[in-house]
Amino acid sequence: MNAVKIVACIGGGVIGAGWVARLLENGIDVNLHDPAPDAKSKTQAVLDNADRAYAKLTMAQRPVKGVLTYCESLELAVRGVPWIIESVPENMEIKHAVYQQIETHAPSEAVIASSTSGIMPSQLQQGMQYPQRLMVAHPFNPVYLLPVVELVAGEQTDLDVITRAKGFYQSLGMRPIHVRKEIEAFVADRLLEAIWRESLWLIKDGIATTEELDDIVRFGFGLRYAQMGVFETYRIAGGEQGMRHFLEQFGPCLSWPWTKLMDVPEYNEELVELIAGQSDAQSGHYSIRQLERIRDDNLVAIQQALKANEWGAGLVLADYEKQLFDAGAKSASIEAQPDHSAPIRTTRRRIPPDWTDYNNHMNEARYLQCFGDATDAFMRLIGCDADYIHNGKSYFTVETHIRHLDEVRVNEQVHTTTQVLSGAGKKMQLFHCLYHDNGTLLATGEHMLIHVSLETRAACIPDVEVLEALEAIAVLHARLPAPEGVGRAVGQAL
Amino acid sequence: MNAVKIVACIGGGVIGAGWVARLLENGIDVNLHDPAPDAKSKTQAVLDNADRAYAKLTMAQRPVKGVLTYCESLELAVRGVPWIIESVPENMEIKHAVYQQIETHAPSEAVIASSTSGIMPSQLQQGMQYPQRLMVAHPFNPVYLLPVVELVAGEQTDLDVITRAKGFYQSLGMRPIHVRKEIEAFVADRLLEAIWRESLWLIKDGIATTEELDDIVRFGFGLRYAQMGVFETYRIAGGEQGMRHFLEQFGPCLSWPWTKLMDVPEYNEELVELIAGQSDAQSGHYSIRQLERIRDDNLVAIQQALKANEWGAGLVLADYEKQLFDAGAKSASIEAQPDHSAPIRTTRRRIPPDWTDYNNHMNEARYLQCFGDATDAFMRLIGCDADYIHNGKSYFTVETHIRHLDEVRVNEQVHTTTQVLSGAGKKMQLFHCLYHDNGTLLATGEHMLIHVSLETRAACIPDVEVLEALEAIAVLHARLPAPEGVGRAVGQAL
Repeated sequence: MNAVKIVACIGGGVIGAGWVARLLENGIDVNLHDPAPDAKSKTQAVLDNADRAYAKLTMAQRPVKGVLTYCESLELAVRGVPWIIESVPENMEIKHAVYQQIETHAPSEAVIASSTSGIMPSQLQQGMQYPQRLMVAHPFNPVYLLPVVELVAGEQTDLDVITRAKGFYQSLGMRPIHVRKEIEAFVADRLLEAIWRESLWLIKDGIATTEELDDIVRFGFGLRYAQMGVFETYRIAGGEQGMRHFLEQFGPCLSWPWTKLMDVPEYNEELVELIAGQSDAQSGHYSIRQLERIRDDNLVAIQQALKANEWGAGLVLADYEKQLFDAGAKSASIEAQPDHSAPIRTTRRRIPPDWTDYNNHMNEARYLQCFGDATDAFMRLIGCDADYIHNGKSYFTVETHIRHLDEVRVNEQVHTTTQVLSGAGKKMQLFHCLYHDNGTLLATGEHMLIHVSLETRAACIPDVEVLEALEAIAVLHARLPAPEGVGRAVGQAL
Repeated sequence: MNAVKIVACIGGGVIGAGWVARLLENGIDVNLHDPAPDAKSKTQAVLDNADRAYAKLTMAQRPVKGVLTYCESLELAVRGVPWIIESVPENMEIKHAVYQQIETHAPSEAVIASSTSGIMPSQLQQGMQYPQRLMVAHPFNPVYLLPVVELVAGEQTDLDVITRAKGFYQSLGMRPIHVRKEIEAFVADRLLEAIWRESLWLIKDGIATTEELDDIVRFGFGLRYAQMGVFETYRIAGGEQGMRHFLEQFGPCLSWPWTKLMDVPEYNEELVELIAGQSDAQSGHYSIRQLERIRDDNLVAIQQALKANEWGAGLVLADYEKQLFDAGAKSASIEAQPDHSAPIRTTRRRIPPDWTDYNNHMNEARYLQCFGDATDAFMRLIGCDADYIHNGKSYFTVETHIRHLDEVRVNEQVHTTTQVLSGAGKKMQLFHCLYHDNGTLLATGEHMLIHVSLETRAACIPDVEVLEALEAIAVLHARLPAPEGVGRAVGQAL
């Protein structure tokens, strides 16, 4: 996947360790040098977080994790290594001393990527023997999860290094952006510093607290910025006339005291044309209506994603839904079906975004998850609930047969029904149907479960209440016709 | 659900129509007055967007939609109405004229909520007969989807109006934030103006284009801001010592030219204590480790949500998964097995922490995930790789049989082998074995796959190269003994 198989990381702070994590997760070996006494434990904490996050991030099979070597000296870390990431403190003298050591011990063609968030690469290059291989590659915390990395060349940087860096960071799942003109703090930190300085005034002047300020961001424009930036957002606000209209409306505000930042560019026709032209090039292939709907779909999806995490704007949505639920009628539930003479409605859910593969339809493994959830719901119905399991007994699935009959896409609503094929002694055989809410049968699942002791992991008879509840439903369901597809082996003729 | 059953909206621009949409979707009738000739069509476009978004936003049963009445005159709109939302242009004379008309025709106790994004409510109240019922309730575009609304009282505002407003906007699914001190542009637009002005400099100085600026936001800090604001984010960056440490590290930057915004508050102990104390009150009940994991879970969920929408950072994740898919075969050392006369080693992986269920062993659905990954690896081996799929053909699983033979725990290393049972025409029947690396057989999976056109979703013959590669292996594997458990139906006697 990647030509670079090993990277040296000099400095293991929050940013350095974040790089280490992203590299290891992508199968690249890392030599880490950080003289701080707690460097190992601090790095390990970041690696633990990254492990946890990557397990959730993607269902794709990832490469075998890279090997991390803690190196006592910088020399040991960089010797023979083709790519070196420097994340030492933002101090020019320290950085220059590190580069001098690197140049002494590393191959002369090894790339040096500085994580500096503010110092211009041309300044970093001063006094270097081979300055053409140094660039800034400025990432954002948490480095292992945020895609953007700003690539900035110094006056002496070989542009081929930037080209190679683009490929390298892309292979790590990142989105490199080449900042074509050097300035201190580059681009992102310019914007962040502007927000930060304005925020400090708002706190100092007692206008708002840190919490109020944060809430105003995360319940408001922060949701927009996760999916569109400043200009595309305002292009939409300008309506069908787009950016020019927005600028006409809000240009005059620049002279108003709406921020402490009063050193503003002159608002003139030249600036309007520059911005409107760039905005047309960026977003002109979408109509405003299209952009509005893309934005809306994203805002919906982000709030739903946060709802699943019980956080921020997702909690606002959850509270709203609670209000609606209280106000409205109760939906269908197991409790609402005391009659078990038909297959039982066991679960209902919407397909979440993380259940999809790269075709954006539900991954095949999630069919079994739907059936596993249906089994859980049925187990609860017969009294094999969390308390019962906590007391040391449960059912284990020993055999599964699935007919994958139709595709289902993200956000579509599905439900399951469950029919007991047999239920006696240690055994329970279930037949689930997974339906789209529009009535389409998506899959069937036939499952043999064995009741076990969680202590011995051996089969055993269920508690009498569970067994009686199961048998009662089994008797009723024995009168139902055998479901289509029951008892099939894979590939058996129809 | 709500005491307010009807609202008058004066002004139907992007903001006014956004209010109309949010109100109607929540079952509240609206009288809209806007003298612009295209007001109806513009409002209808926003209502269409809102309809579409709400259909996706929540599955909860919503109230019957409110009734919209377009009113020829302001008088007709406000007569007898208890809540009036003013969203007319940001011009003091226009606003004062509108309030005068409202006071002439509306009940004297009717609340007047101005949507102004910058004018202080005390200025709006000048000359009013009943100024105590006027406040600012400043929303954000799109009003029907973004939760935050800034509530700002003027000098003469009755605080009971703010209290009632909190309840009212909450009932609409919003997150009202009371800005306790009046300033021009309030809080959110202060931050937005700071970003905007800095952005204009970056464009004017030719540092970046609108597209590059937007990408740096939406692939970077914009993802963070969707779930945590400025201060909670930086608290995490400070590590275990939190906000004080962050301020110590970055306080000095305030005197550096990292933005054009150089009028900065004095960085002193008093400011540090103010901010650190507020940050403790806001986030001190979480450890930094907890905050890191909350942040990571949110960043993962947001990127996955955007993947489903095929947009922004979600596209970066999708591209990354495509790369992993391509690389998967190579890392699984298939190339190291040119001899296909035995079952083929298809995948190897460690069981991640989130794959375990309440029984503390791997969830049953993940057995199918292991087999799905093995199928993917085998598909790549015969040339059905990302490019092939991108060109419009693939194999879909239509039937699965799993024998769950043993448990497996977190962090244990497993691998799969794959035997072709048959492979000819549109059909491919595979038999996977999942082994613990210690040699224990954990499960077997038997799968029927059909080759399909991704355009028509119908079965079709594979390209000749794929078919030949499959058939060659099928011929070799036909000489192997039938694997144990092949052709079983669920519950069939041994």
